[in-house]
Formats: sequence, C-alpha cells, structure tokens
Amino acid sequence: MDILKSLNWRYATKRMTGKKLPAQDLQTILDAIRLSASSYGLQPYNVIVIESEELRKQLQPLAYGQAQIVESSHVLVFAAWNSVDEAKVDEYLQAYSETTSMPLEKILAFGVKDRMMQAIVGMPQDEQYHWAAKQAFIALGTGIIAAASLEIYATPMEGFLPSKVDELLGLQERNLRSVALLALGYRDSANDFMEKAPKHRWSAEKLFIKI
Amino acid sequence: MDILKSLNWRYATKRMTGKKLPAQDLQTILDAIRLSASSYGLQPYNVIVIESEELRKQLQPLAYGQAQIVESSHVLVFAAWNSVDEAKVDEYLQAYSETTSMPLEKILAFGVKDRMMQAIVGMPQDEQYHWAAKQAFIALGTGIIAAASLEIYATPMEGFLPSKVDELLGLQERNLRSVALLALGYRDSANDFMEKAPKHRWSAEKLFIKI
Repeated sequence: MDILKSLNWRYATKRMTGKKLPAQDLQTILDAIRLSASSYGLQPYNVIVIESEELRKQLQPLAYGQAQIVESSHVLVFAAWNSVDEAKVDEYLQAYSETTSMPLEKILAFGVKDRMMQAIVGMPQDEQYHWAAKQAFIALGTGIIAAASLEIYATPMEGFLPSKVDELLGLQERNLRSVALLALGYRDSANDFMEKAPKHRWSAEKLFIKI
Repeated sequence: MDILKSLNWRYATKRMTGKKLPAQDLQTILDAIRLSASSYGLQPYNVIVIESEELRKQLQPLAYGQAQIVESSHVLVFAAWNSVDEAKVDEYLQAYSETTSMPLEKILAFGVKDRMMQAIVGMPQDEQYHWAAKQAFIALGTGIIAAASLEIYATPMEGFLPSKVDELLGLQERNLRSVALLALGYRDSANDFMEKAPKHRWSAEKLFIKI
C-alpha cells in the first residue's frame, strides 16, 4: 500500500460526471470507514449513505449549490452523536461482548464501563458532541484515503448548512448532527478547474515542531 | 494499496519494545500527515515530533502513565490552533501563492480570503478551536493509516491532561492546544494484552443508514 501515492493522487474534486461507483468499490470504502480507529472503540457517529438522485437534488441547495452533490455517485453524510448516554455505552459493551465472545461480566470487571461513564458520559453535552465530531473526522479521513486507494474521486465538504441537512435527513430524531459530507464519484476533467492545480501544503518546517 | 488489510492489521498497541523506527518510515508517516486533506487546505494545526527519552519520561505521568509513551520510538502530539486570525490566513495565502506560482492578487480576486475570513476568522474563538481540532483528527487518522501501511505499530491516545501537556511543551505560547497523541513503535508481543483481542466495530447495519 503506497499511501503517499494515494495522497498525492487525490484532490478535492469540484466537478464529477455522474458515473456510478462499482458496488465493490463502494463496499471497500464503507468497510474502511467501519474499521476506522476511535477512542474507546465507541465510534460515536453514523454515516448516512445517499444514492437517491432526488434526495441529492434536495441536498444541493443546502450545500451552497455545490455541483458534486448531484454529479457524484453517492454522498456520505458523517453525523456525530449529539450526546452520549449510558444506554449507548451499554449497547456498545453488549456488542463488544458478542464480537469478542468475552462475557459482559468480565468486561465490566475490567472497569471499562466505569471509565467510559466518567470520561465520556460525564462530559457536558456540548463537549460530548465535539468529542464525537472529532471521532467522525478520523472516519472521514479514512474514507478519503480509502477512495484514493481505489482511484475513486472524493470531495470532503464542510460547506453546508448542518441544521438544514439534519432536518432534511431527519437526523435530530436520531440524536445525530451532520458534521461533514463526502461526495464519491468520477471527476469531470473537462470542467474541473481544480484538476490541474498544484497541491499546496504547509512545508515540513512550518507544520512539524521537532523537540 | 490494500487499505482494508492495513486497517485490519492495526490495533491500539498497549506495550512497545523501545525499538526505533527507521528514519525512512518516520519520514513517510510525517509526509502522509503533511498531505492530509483539510478544509480550505488550511491545516490549522501543528504536529510536535518527540524523540527525546527524557521528554517522553516527563510526558508519561501526564498521560496516566501509559507505557507506550516511553516504550515507543517517537510520540507525535497533534496540536490544534487555539484560534485563527487574519495573519494566519494571510500567511496561508502567501504560502499557497508561492507553491502554485499563482500571483497573490489573482488568488484574492477569486474571493478566497473573503470566504476564509467569513467562514473561519468570523467564528467565535471556541468554535475556531473545535474546527481546528477536527481538522487535526483527519491528520491523526491519516497518520494511523500511514503507520499501518508500513506495519509500524501506532497508538492514538486521548487519555492525557491537555493543559499539562501544553505547559510541558510550551504550546500555549505558540497558540496551540494538544488534542491527541500518537505513539509510534514496535509492539511488545510478550506483554501486549490487546495483541490477541478480536477487533470490534459496530456492524454495518448499526453504523450506516442507507437512504
């Protein structure tokens, strides 16, 4: 896996052709997102997978009319849990017990629940949301790299109206808040003004502080 | 690049051997972090690269005594900008102009600065910080995957006292706040209780909402 090649290959694609992703490639990207690292392993977010052309048309004006919303194959909406309560921790520990075949009593005896209750459920609600959003951004980053590894074009987007998107998708009722979009598809070379733009990043001297 | 293989290979390594990373592998991981996607391309964070054994000893008690801090080869500290002001936007646009050989006047004519001023500098300071922290988590995720792609063990950590770490590293004077650590090294198989633990993630049915 040549990660530098993939990272150098990708860019925030501005125009796409509408061509659909092969089911296998979409599956790989979703599998990668599902395997993302997260604090305590809790993955305090959901990812809404939108293929419907009609729904993407409704979404587009809520994202300042960005073309990729309708020209992509799929749009992923990364939605952080708005809050984390004891029931969510219990659901996680139960699922963990099932995956690992480790009895719940044994997991509890390690003090895992106590630590999660103190560290996460004990935070004020707005901090829980910010914490969950950061975890979702690890998953977003993973999705971006997964797409690049398959030479699928992907555009991460924060330019949208979160409360309007939440309303459109019924996220509030699910205790979710949209934090980022990821459009997946194929670039439209004829119209993508970013295609030829050189990649800019901070120099290593500016980004890294060596101590 | 088989991203699923790398993601399945990795886990939050709990014990490391102290063996040093080859310089080339560390360089690849840092290059990948530097190439991370970020909103507006601003990369509103710095990454502190710590090799010093002495400094890692001082850091360890601030991270609840976690062994990887001293048993790793290097510890990366992801530090978000605490605020984003006009000077930072100007510095970015100047650097962008140099990388792309596009005259600054032309970039300004596109309205890029106005949009960044409105969208980022216009946010209240605490929102700027949360926004910067989320961008740093994309870079954290990228670093995790880069390490896994090289079969370097890596442990992302949020279990530390940010204000104490900021004090130790002099981050406040740099307008930075530590948001995550990433220990890089080689696992100590004899003592790592997580080595054999099955990987648990939410099922696809629980994580994804298909609309």
